[in-house]
Amino acid sequence: MSGAVVLLSGGLDSTTTLAIALDRDRDVIALSFRYGQRHSRELDSARAVAEHYGVRHIVVDLDLSSFTSSALTSDEVDVPDADTHPVGEDIPVTYVPARNIIMLSVAAGLCETVGADSIYIGANAVDYSGYPDCRPEFFESYERLLAVGTKVGVEGHPIALETPIIAMTKAEIVGMGMAMGAPLHLTWSCYRGGDRACGRCDSCVLRLAGFQDAGYEDAIEYEVR
Amino acid sequence: MSGAVVLLSGGLDSTTTLAIALDRDRDVIALSFRYGQRHSRELDSARAVAEHYGVRHIVVDLDLSSFTSSALTSDEVDVPDADTHPVGEDIPVTYVPARNIIMLSVAAGLCETVGADSIYIGANAVDYSGYPDCRPEFFESYERLLAVGTKVGVEGHPIALETPIIAMTKAEIVGMGMAMGAPLHLTWSCYRGGDRACGRCDSCVLRLAGFQDAGYEDAIEYEVR
Repeated sequence: MSGAVVLLSGGLDSTTTLAIALDRDRDVIALSFRYGQRHSRELDSARAVAEHYGVRHIVVDLDLSSFTSSALTSDEVDVPDADTHPVGEDIPVTYVPARNIIMLSVAAGLCETVGADSIYIGANAVDYSGYPDCRPEFFESYERLLAVGTKVGVEGHPIALETPIIAMTKAEIVGMGMAMGAPLHLTWSCYRGGDRACGRCDSCVLRLAGFQDAGYEDAIEYEVR
Repeated sequence: MSGAVVLLSGGLDSTTTLAIALDRDRDVIALSFRYGQRHSRELDSARAVAEHYGVRHIVVDLDLSSFTSSALTSDEVDVPDADTHPVGEDIPVTYVPARNIIMLSVAAGLCETVGADSIYIGANAVDYSGYPDCRPEFFESYERLLAVGTKVGVEGHPIALETPIIAMTKAEIVGMGMAMGAPLHLTWSCYRGGDRACGRCDSCVLRLAGFQDAGYEDAIEYEVR
């Protein structure tokens, strides 16, 4: 079969990546994680996006809150506003240790189980904010690992790791998502919870600029924009 | 600091590995997983071993039973007896897809969080039963991944992946464990649950032969031996 596991956070990037996988006629399973996030807004969006496309959606519980110290999972660390923390400088406090390594590993297990031959991840190296596990050399290394460390890899059918938006700017991602009819109005990017996106964190600022540069209106609601 | 995260399943191999890490004066955190095992016997043993040594013990919930088809996590697949399935031939049904890839990824996240500089895993390539993610080339590949995909790796302090018993026979592992005073009487190896080890599955058969070849008595109880 030509099956793919698509990591779906519920954000703009992973939703556009899901649209690309479906456009390539892949038989898709969407995979999300409940990893001790401070709010469930992202997961709600992931569910809505999967439902929009009618694809199978698996949510794996992986509660790392017992040991991670990142601002995304801990109540004790504040999410910084973008203007106090320039994007691209150093590794930000919103970094969840080894998060992509962990999520890809579960995706690999799922691929082996269902016989899917590829993993799609909406990582991006342009607006990557300094995360080491969003760089192309990381994904190349992971693909080599999957070739030697999985049953299918050893048997000569290694799992492919697809990063279709890795070299796109945020504006290009928005443009592609909109052109493909992806339900970007259902997505959530804000690092903070709440009914509306804050409009001030790194993620909101990048998203808003992406829509503006792409020439589209962002249909979600913001506190400030 | 010279800290280590030790993957502790509660079995013979991981307990001996823990003893080795402690012998090397490492500041140890033991890490176990609740991954939808059919029985909790192994985890009980992990707890008892960690307590024996007085080391911090973290159990991470990672329920993969929703998608794995392995005999170790699914009620629908029978655990084969050793005599119906020669060890070392093909990849056995007791293989949990990508299990070591997944557990190592969480260990890497924990290392980054607490500032530990190494991961110890009691993998073994001699009695490895055909698991692709127990081979030395897999661990070498994983160490390279950690160098490019983690914050500490990128900053020039890559996490080391230690596999101290990878080239030992089961008898050598038993001999080393006993010589170091490791609490092997608290460990659990049987793939089946129950009050006593079955004595018939691959894992029991290997363990019993290991004790016999090492010239020690296995202090745990068996149904058959």
